[in-house]
Amino acid sequence: MEDFSYVIDTFFALFAMTLIIFMVPGFAMLEAGLVRTKNVSAVLTINVMIYAVASMTFFLVGYSLAFGSWENSAMSMYAAFLFQMAFVGKTVNIMSGGVSERVRMIPLAIFTVVMAALIYPAVVNVSWGADMLEGTFLDLNMYDLAGSTVIHSTGGWALLAAILIMGPRRGRYVEGKIRVIPASNIPLVVLGALLLWIGWFGFNGGSVGSIASKESADAVALTIMNTNTAGLAGALIAGIIMYVRYKLFDITMILNGALGGLVAITAGPDLYNMYVPILIGAVGGALVVFAVPLFDKLKLDDPVGALSVHLVNGIWGTLAVGLFVSDISFFDQLKGVVLIAVFVFSVSYGVLKLINGFFPYRADDEAQLEGLDVTECGVEAYPEFKRAI
Amino acid sequence: MEDFSYVIDTFFALFAMTLIIFMVPGFAMLEAGLVRTKNVSAVLTINVMIYAVASMTFFLVGYSLAFGSWENSAMSMYAAFLFQMAFVGKTVNIMSGGVSERVRMIPLAIFTVVMAALIYPAVVNVSWGADMLEGTFLDLNMYDLAGSTVIHSTGGWALLAAILIMGPRRGRYVEGKIRVIPASNIPLVVLGALLLWIGWFGFNGGSVGSIASKESADAVALTIMNTNTAGLAGALIAGIIMYVRYKLFDITMILNGALGGLVAITAGPDLYNMYVPILIGAVGGALVVFAVPLFDKLKLDDPVGALSVHLVNGIWGTLAVGLFVSDISFFDQLKGVVLIAVFVFSVSYGVLKLINGFFPYRADDEAQLEGLDVTECGVEAYPEFKRAI
Amino acid sequence: MEDFSYVIDTFFALFAMTLIIFMVPGFAMLEAGLVRTKNVSAVLTINVMIYAVASMTFFLVGYSLAFGSWENSAMSMYAAFLFQMAFVGKTVNIMSGGVSERVRMIPLAIFTVVMAALIYPAVVNVSWGADMLEGTFLDLNMYDLAGSTVIHSTGGWALLAAILIMGPRRGRYVEGKIRVIPASNIPLVVLGALLLWIGWFGFNGGSVGSIASKESADAVALTIMNTNTAGLAGALIAGIIMYVRYKLFDITMILNGALGGLVAITAGPDLYNMYVPILIGAVGGALVVFAVPLFDKLKLDDPVGALSVHLVNGIWGTLAVGLFVSDISFFDQLKGVVLIAVFVFSVSYGVLKLINGFFPYRADDEAQLEGLDVTECGVEAYPEFKRAI
Repeated sequence: MEDFSYVIDTFFALFAMTLIIFMVPGFAMLEAGLVRTKNVSAVLTINVMIYAVASMTFFLVGYSLAFGSWENSAMSMYAAFLFQMAFVGKTVNIMSGGVSERVRMIPLAIFTVVMAALIYPAVVNVSWGADMLEGTFLDLNMYDLAGSTVIHSTGGWALLAAILIMGPRRGRYVEGKIRVIPASNIPLVVLGALLLWIGWFGFNGGSVGSIASKESADAVALTIMNTNTAGLAGALIAGIIMYVRYKLFDITMILNGALGGLVAITAGPDLYNMYVPILIGAVGGALVVFAVPLFDKLKLDDPVGALSVHLVNGIWGTLAVGLFVSDISFFDQLKGVVLIAVFVFSVSYGVLKLINGFFPYRADDEAQLEGLDVTECGVEAYPEFKRAI
Repeated sequence: MEDFSYVIDTFFALFAMTLIIFMVPGFAMLEAGLVRTKNVSAVLTINVMIYAVASMTFFLVGYSLAFGSWENSAMSMYAAFLFQMAFVGKTVNIMSGGVSERVRMIPLAIFTVVMAALIYPAVVNVSWGADMLEGTFLDLNMYDLAGSTVIHSTGGWALLAAILIMGPRRGRYVEGKIRVIPASNIPLVVLGALLLWIGWFGFNGGSVGSIASKESADAVALTIMNTNTAGLAGALIAGIIMYVRYKLFDITMILNGALGGLVAITAGPDLYNMYVPILIGAVGGALVVFAVPLFDKLKLDDPVGALSVHLVNGIWGTLAVGLFVSDISFFDQLKGVVLIAVFVFSVSYGVLKLINGFFPYRADDEAQLEGLDVTECGVEAYPEFKRAI
Repeated sequence: MEDFSYVIDTFFALFAMTLIIFMVPGFAMLEAGLVRTKNVSAVLTINVMIYAVASMTFFLVGYSLAFGSWENSAMSMYAAFLFQMAFVGKTVNIMSGGVSERVRMIPLAIFTVVMAALIYPAVVNVSWGADMLEGTFLDLNMYDLAGSTVIHSTGGWALLAAILIMGPRRGRYVEGKIRVIPASNIPLVVLGALLLWIGWFGFNGGSVGSIASKESADAVALTIMNTNTAGLAGALIAGIIMYVRYKLFDITMILNGALGGLVAITAGPDLYNMYVPILIGAVGGALVVFAVPLFDKLKLDDPVGALSVHLVNGIWGTLAVGLFVSDISFFDQLKGVVLIAVFVFSVSYGVLKLINGFFPYRADDEAQLEGLDVTECGVEAYPEFKRAI
């Protein structure tokens, strides 16, 4: 029977990991669809770079810092690593997406190393891992099954620091007006968002950690069902709000609503009964719809809505566990949110500032005008297609 | 050993469910590639809307009506639900695809609710579920493992009703001539069709219901092999017919041939020996090639060929079980096909007519000319690309 | 417990097979993105044709020749077949990709039959299967877990034969100069390459053959981890070389570097400790970067870099097992590489020449100028998009 658990849980971790890896093309397609055609190759290159750099760094350095050791008796230690490795790039994906169309490659690659080697492993260490804060007054008791805070807010706080340092895209806020820059390829946006959605089943389902008993099989299935329900509710509420306001269905907002719901459920998908996720996801979707214009008013230029989806809902989802689950202390959840916010934002800000001194993050106006595909990659995304604008 | 089955079958249901969810981007990409660029965002929005509305409705209402209860002792009840939930949107996908480029969003969303709350659950109830007709003279003994009739014909009959009510696209049949409207993005068509193909492994393989014994593992593997073989045969025969006729390989027809073969095998993929699916699939593929122009002659305008793929082959596949499997009564298969046809077509027609009175389904000519992306979504699919036509 | 292994290994083979099938859209999208818009439908049609023709041929003929019998006591024989079937088309994919933009459909379909019925089954027979050479002086003792040689070099040698017969694309090498032809759709290139990467987890992980004990579960997980690590290293080294040389990140080269690393690790991903794959993959990625211009100097026109990715790294990966694993004889690895090279190249060359006499492979200059989408398929890939070039 011990062999049975070991085999099944290794297999299940590999299955879950594979689903999460579909989030690599997921993020890549989503962002490639949302930016202008002249920055598509750059965004895609960044996504591949993040997977390569973050995963390799986590393999060589970060994983040991987060978990203390590779040893694992419950399943194959290689499968346990692969599952965790599939997560790490996501934090940088969230950050890089929000500074699309102006961020340069080399300094982003350097920050990716720091995130995967130090910042993210430190967050994991105190939340899920070896727990270096145990016994101190900073010790976290936050419940965060699959990373509303550990992944999504972490990426979000790093993004906020990056936006503050880099500023908005050239021409985005001119003479007090917000210039709308439409997404260039909606099929890619939809494909990417749906791949992310599917990847979330592995993200959250796999985070239960085992499927090898009746109880854990139920927990995994409930987790995936609740995850999906929250995504559905987020999409529905975003669609309804858009229709009520504009009599139009903006698919990019609907999908961001879905992603907001998915982020929000991620802290506790195993804890809720089957109807609560409707509420969690609906609030998550609504938060996205209201946060997107708010960040624009604050001139925090975020071409893909990552602050609204990941940061706002990472916070909401983590606090929601404290609100809706009787055994969980709201204070502990809040403490986790705040401490990780302070740590990630301040360290990211410092590191980004430091790197920025040597390798400036922001592409200059000329490069932004020409498009980063030419200046960073030397590869146009659609060279044979005539541009209308 | 009971735990073993419970765990393995829960895991397997989650695996199969995940594959089926890939059919959401599958249908979305296929249809986005087949319609004109001015209707791409609308088609994509519809696909996401269907997944959200149909799944949520089925969760809240339809599933209980279909199966009587959520209880399940063979596997986690949440996994059982997720697997069934993955099916429900498909019926509306089939229907919505066939009325692309003219259908409006709000009335389609309302019909999606009715389909997922009532029509589809009623069909499932009498075919796979609690069976409210048991003991009556209408009691069905149709064998339909994964839904040639329950899913594909159901969607197809609803589509036929919708086409009759909505009429063809503006400018499609002018002065007795059929105007060919080419697909706008062939890579998306191929990607979508191949994702559907992969999803079918989960659809049919998962419908076996268990993989936790030697016999059931064989049944699952045979089912997936036969499913694939029928798809291969459908693609091959469609390609051969196109080449014999035109000396050209029309990839959209080849893929529709493959999908026709896949629909046809879906009623009994577990019942055939390994060579019969070649015949089932080849007939399925040929039926598509001949049905597409036939429906056009009847001025049933179906931009994606859904009637030919899903309705014609749903019928063929269900009857084929009666022809090729000695234990199965052809009459029972025919009775199932006819009764479900009468029920779905008449109820769908009535419901669609009723909704149409309040929220007209058909976008007016002006909106069709401008494109539904602008009038329904406010989001152009490819705003930076210059149009050639 | 025997049932346990049978069930788990059948399930695992189906899981692995499904991942490999994602390589069908993977290759299709990669190649559709790399060629010019006027040849996109043709390339996509070829990819679907290969899956249909190669799989059906292998089902009817090739599988029995390779393995002698369908019998399998370790898992469901249908699952064993499906797993092997998922491989066969890849050899032709590799070959067809490299002759894109000039190869005609009918002769390619005929060669696909020969490859899947005879050439590939013969290679499998002596490497993994019934082993007709056993006891002879040609008997192979090459270690090649998932096909660095059996799949990738086989496809590569067939490609080399095909390029020699077909010559370069019209206008590619003019007056001693190499004309650069840019990829037409970078998002598709990235999507395709990432789907291939994910498929590789099934390819190599599934090739371990069992997951149903602690030891085999570890072997599978190590295999997948090593596979991924080599891909990461290949991408990183290609990116670094490109940056050092050009201060630009060419995403197509980075992805080909990743694929090169993946091909190279494929011979022995289960044999290395966790750090060796960094070296194997890095050398693989570097080989791609240097081989691409080299083949161009030799006027071997290969639009997708398949010779560099699959042939060069198929050889490197197979020899690397002999270099890095103490129990494996370098001579046996070299002997396998050479014998399979001689067999596949000479037979492919002869067969291609023979077919070429009846059905010329090379589309004439006029057809190449117009684009194969029109001449071979009658379906333009992007009819509504205005061409810039």
